Amino acid sequence: MDKLKKMIVEKGEIKKGNVLKVDSFLNHQLDIEFLYEMGEELYNLFKDRNITKILTIEVSGIAIASMAALHFKVPVVFAKKSESLNLDNDIYKGKVISYTKNKEYNIMISKKYLNEDDRLLIIDDFLAEGNAIRCLIDLADESGATVEGIGIAIEKGFQKGGKCLRENGYNLKSLAIIDKMENGDITFRED
Amino acid sequence: MDKLKKMIVEKGEIKKGNVLKVDSFLNHQLDIEFLYEMGEELYNLFKDRNITKILTIEVSGIAIASMAALHFKVPVVFAKKSESLNLDNDIYKGKVISYTKNKEYNIMISKKYLNEDDRLLIIDDFLAEGNAIRCLIDLADESGATVEGIGIAIEKGFQKGGKCLRENGYNLKSLAIIDKMENGDITFRED
Repeated sequence: MDKLKKMIVEKGEIKKGNVLKVDSFLNHQLDIEFLYEMGEELYNLFKDRNITKILTIEVSGIAIASMAALHFKVPVVFAKKSESLNLDNDIYKGKVISYTKNKEYNIMISKKYLNEDDRLLIIDDFLAEGNAIRCLIDLADESGATVEGIGIAIEKGFQKGGKCLRENGYNLKSLAIIDKMENGDITFRED
Repeated sequence: MDKLKKMIVEKGEIKKGNVLKVDSFLNHQLDIEFLYEMGEELYNLFKDRNITKILTIEVSGIAIASMAALHFKVPVVFAKKSESLNLDNDIYKGKVISYTKNKEYNIMISKKYLNEDDRLLIIDDFLAEGNAIRCLIDLADESGATVEGIGIAIEKGFQKGGKCLRENGYNLKSLAIIDKMENGDITFRED
């Protein structure tokens, strides 16, 4: 998506450890009209998959998942982060290691909101190592739902998450894939 | 908003300590088309205030703030929660005591995204004691921005947050105000 690449180049900030900050439009301030366009783009990529629900994870996935859901006319379920491992039987639960934050956290989804009839589109703002997405897939699998697609705003193509997911046969599409970040220069993968 | 009251009665669950759970449409699963209608209702309530930005707080405020922002055609800024008190000079920071979670947490907003030209609409999903909203107001004041309005989905009218804010002259409007929750029965304030 050319407009997203342009926004990343113009407004992104590269921080230590190959962290890309896009706080001005995606992670802190939200450029809602642009997010709506990204949602439409995700709809165009997955509209033939009969999606019944969009699955994402708090915090930064919520806005873009919501914008996509407006186009699909389906609900969003967001996995919740929790400090303690909740022991309820009525939740699906898993553990995620965050690359950017260098820490581990638990996530959970109420069993009420995912089931074997669901055809899921998983959406997130970033894909790097893919730990959060893998955990969402595990919880979806546990529920019996089908993962019909994975839609990402910004994929860091130089980390292994996207490669592994594609090799495992997932229908993964990213609106922008960054192949290199060096000395402040960003190289995108060709569409 | 009659439809919201109906959703609360039909889908809400009252938990110990007067906690109302609306996980099926507002706090875990998101009924996006209904949230879009709530966003429109908030737009109708505040459209004459020349809002330049919507301010909310992670996590549950983000989706409804985003839907309202689509109608206002303005960006959203969401305050971020952080465990440690960030000592950067480029952020506004404050402390919130959560009534439902019975714990204290820090929030922060980058100074880049709020300034004295902003005419803010503060949006959140719930208002009870009003601690989160008061903290957002403090940070807005520190930035020099004007708080033009406060829009809430569900106000617990039997807790003091809404009363105090109105007494202090804030233009606060809630889509549903609950005056009483007893034995599973919910009494709403008349519009």
